[in-house]
Amino acid sequence: MDILNETSEKGVAEARFDLKVDDEVVPGIRWRPERGTGPTATILIGHGGTQHKRVPNVVGLARRFVRHLGATVYALDAPGHGDRITDPAAAEAARARLQGRIASGGGASWQMSADEAAAWVERTQRGVCEWHALVDEVEQGGGGNGTIGYWGVSMGTLIGLPFVASEPRVTAAVLGLAGLGGRPDTVEMEAQARSLTIPILFVFQWDDELMSRESGAALFDAIGSAEKTMHINPGGHVNTPLFERDDYDRFFARHLTVNQ
Amino acid sequence: MDILNETSEKGVAEARFDLKVDDEVVPGIRWRPERGTGPTATILIGHGGTQHKRVPNVVGLARRFVRHLGATVYALDAPGHGDRITDPAAAEAARARLQGRIASGGGASWQMSADEAAAWVERTQRGVCEWHALVDEVEQGGGGNGTIGYWGVSMGTLIGLPFVASEPRVTAAVLGLAGLGGRPDTVEMEAQARSLTIPILFVFQWDDELMSRESGAALFDAIGSAEKTMHINPGGHVNTPLFERDDYDRFFARHLTVNQ
Repeated sequence: MDILNETSEKGVAEARFDLKVDDEVVPGIRWRPERGTGPTATILIGHGGTQHKRVPNVVGLARRFVRHLGATVYALDAPGHGDRITDPAAAEAARARLQGRIASGGGASWQMSADEAAAWVERTQRGVCEWHALVDEVEQGGGGNGTIGYWGVSMGTLIGLPFVASEPRVTAAVLGLAGLGGRPDTVEMEAQARSLTIPILFVFQWDDELMSRESGAALFDAIGSAEKTMHINPGGHVNTPLFERDDYDRFFARHLTVNQ
Repeated sequence: MDILNETSEKGVAEARFDLKVDDEVVPGIRWRPERGTGPTATILIGHGGTQHKRVPNVVGLARRFVRHLGATVYALDAPGHGDRITDPAAAEAARARLQGRIASGGGASWQMSADEAAAWVERTQRGVCEWHALVDEVEQGGGGNGTIGYWGVSMGTLIGLPFVASEPRVTAAVLGLAGLGGRPDTVEMEAQARSLTIPILFVFQWDDELMSRESGAALFDAIGSAEKTMHINPGGHVNTPLFERDDYDRFFARHLTVNQ
């Protein structure tokens, strides 16, 4: 992991870094307490589709996890996102399509093309490998205290679910805004969910334009963990209420070794 | 309200009181900060079926609402419960029936008889009147700060839903372990839920032996409030995890005027 620079604001130090995974450079950001506190919990944040490592929601969550939990937080640009966009026009078109689906109320009429499906599966697998590589770096770097959380909803769950299902070093995860069905990897997602044993907080929007209530309930139901909680709020895909952030804090506080 | 005695333990003062409603004496308990703090938030706790005003769950919640929120907390024996049991053998039989339904996995095979249905409706209406009378007393007593919360699940929701729907002085409520359907007052319950405008935290158990997932989702769906959140955990009717208590605290902290 190459740290490019580090600046501080209100007690939180933020560093850009590059993570080399195979032949690719994955840009990331690390947030940590400005003053050294010894080993800290690690929290990984996976952003949503068409977003990137430093959208306001990610920065806001990261800073509060540092301030409230004393954690070190990492975000990566997902494959094809943020600084990894190679075709800006195609990325802009993808963003417009997603916004159009939300604005139109989405629903079952939307179908992924075979090309889109293949691209999604490849992107997911690549994203999973990159998170594993980041965990390797964190473990080697020695700054972590051995407890690792993952937070990611929507695309952050589509990549995060196979990641946490295959990463025994992650000890708790917040997932959500995702469901079972309608995707090329539905069978794999269900198997991954069933294999989970770590505590899961699963957030869902009751009026999500991109997935049905039934699909969300099916994914929650499939999660094999003894401790799992589903939080459902009214509103659409991008309307999760801000007070849920308090619940993320407390969920990680229960399951990671934190400094409060 | 006749205060019968008051004792203190670890900063929480507990008083037995009798509330006269029409010709009946309703036994209750009030918990409040041992040292006067000026006006406080009020939280009303409605116990579950076959329970009473001082079961461990009620005492535990009441004491933490005092300690964490500086609130004054009230519980009443519901009609036909606790000190209001007039036929101990019948009460014991009702408890055994309920435990039997839970032990057997419950399900749709259970049907309320016409007599049971009539008794439930009368009990619910009486319980609602008694909570209104208690709120009158709290308001007249002058110790409240004008913000009132209600907490009650299972039978505490069957009585609490019509109560909070008809009591504009209640400003937030925790409900749950209840669903729409299979009861004599289902139509009324749905209308009451739709009329709600206050913030609601609705807890539900994914494997509840006494009501289906669909009935719980239907009741949550019917709630008219702009802010409503459903928390679903695995396990049966009596297995709500203790960590949900932190969420009750914070829900009331957001919506009542509390001393933290």
